[in-house]
Amino acid sequence: MTESPAGAGSARWSAELPVAFSDPVYVAAVVDLLGAIAYGEISAFERLSEDAKMAPTLEDKAELARMASTEFAHFEGLRARLGEIGADPFAAMADFVGPFEAFHRRTSPADWLEGLVKAYVGDGLAADFYREIAAFLDSDTRAIILESLQDAGQSAFVVDRVRAAIEADPRVGGRLALWGRRLMGEALSQAQRVAAERDALGALLSGGVDRPALDLAAIGRLFTRLTENHSARMEKLGLSA
Amino acid sequence: MTESPAGAGSARWSAELPVAFSDPVYVAAVVDLLGAIAYGEISAFERLSEDAKMAPTLEDKAELARMASTEFAHFEGLRARLGEIGADPFAAMADFVGPFEAFHRRTSPADWLEGLVKAYVGDGLAADFYREIAAFLDSDTRAIILESLQDAGQSAFVVDRVRAAIEADPRVGGRLALWGRRLMGEALSQAQRVAAERDALGALLSGGVDRPALDLAAIGRLFTRLTENHSARMEKLGLSA
Repeated sequence: MTESPAGAGSARWSAELPVAFSDPVYVAAVVDLLGAIAYGEISAFERLSEDAKMAPTLEDKAELARMASTEFAHFEGLRARLGEIGADPFAAMADFVGPFEAFHRRTSPADWLEGLVKAYVGDGLAADFYREIAAFLDSDTRAIILESLQDAGQSAFVVDRVRAAIEADPRVGGRLALWGRRLMGEALSQAQRVAAERDALGALLSGGVDRPALDLAAIGRLFTRLTENHSARMEKLGLSA
Repeated sequence: MTESPAGAGSARWSAELPVAFSDPVYVAAVVDLLGAIAYGEISAFERLSEDAKMAPTLEDKAELARMASTEFAHFEGLRARLGEIGADPFAAMADFVGPFEAFHRRTSPADWLEGLVKAYVGDGLAADFYREIAAFLDSDTRAIILESLQDAGQSAFVVDRVRAAIEADPRVGGRLALWGRRLMGEALSQAQRVAAERDALGALLSGGVDRPALDLAAIGRLFTRLTENHSARMEKLGLSA
């Protein structure tokens, strides 16, 4: 995870970076995407370490702190990659501060369980979305994105805690199901806002000489997959989607 | 960093643990000490991730998040060691929640710079203190404690930021010098409280058949060293102690 200073890598491009990087539109899209994911990771770090305060036990608190540290490690990897491709990592993240903060402000968990559901459902949705987009990228960039999406065992922890809470008090299930739907709605609305505003990301999805395009039908199928995966996650938590 | 369940390690004691562990008073003292340091680490994680919110730039925020993640990694190592010696890690930490939380409540930083000074001065003081006590322990336990006290580069970052702020506005130096003195006072008062309440730690310092005792003169010298190191740290920050 060494980081070359922004801009210093340009001489290395032709030698080390895939041919796709000779297309400035492609580079801009990759920088945008890595910037978005990186900011998402550090913002997940913040959210999880904040939610850790609500943990009912020190053991649960440590579990959330572990999840937060994992997100931060992913952030470091993405930041290093941005440096490697000659971008200023923090400039690349700057435009995504607004949408992520808006999402978190609108979905501030009222208690420990809402925080857990948000971590599980939100991270799952983000991971699905980035994984879909990664399919349009060069293999190095794809690899680093997929690595940053790895589940560090948090899913089992969240599923266990949420299911136990519902078992103890079934009314909790109804409240958390509503919460899960709200999370999905807010996430989609922010994602749409970002997609509409970012020309480079849009251009990426419309393909290139050597890259497939994402047409309207494909976008439709993408949304279907995202929605199905969301429902499957809600079901795993014992919640109706 | 695997963790054996609490109690399950007893059969391994005679084979793998140093001879000192056959003394239940020694074991109790080590469990106490590791519990205290471990809770200190997770509480530092919480404090740093909270202070990260006050960061003036995303880069500074990432730096504090990195420091927090480092503290959490130390926590995981100590927790694993507690498991290895047959203790319940969270039970070992429980008694230290009160003193650490009291310290943090009494020294809640009012701004970004106070948070940085607290991280630097507080961690430094804690590290000095634990390093002194580690000298009374078996080499395995000593090694894991010393490892958890390693500076992950945060000192250079804090010194740089604090000195730059004083240069920009010299009045900041006076305020932060007072703040540093208050931190030292509160830390000593909580440490004294813990020492007075923990019989096992007290017994450790009074020595054993094969271990040196810490007599009153030695305690005096210890305090002198702690105070001198504190002054040296304040000076590095550009503050009068």
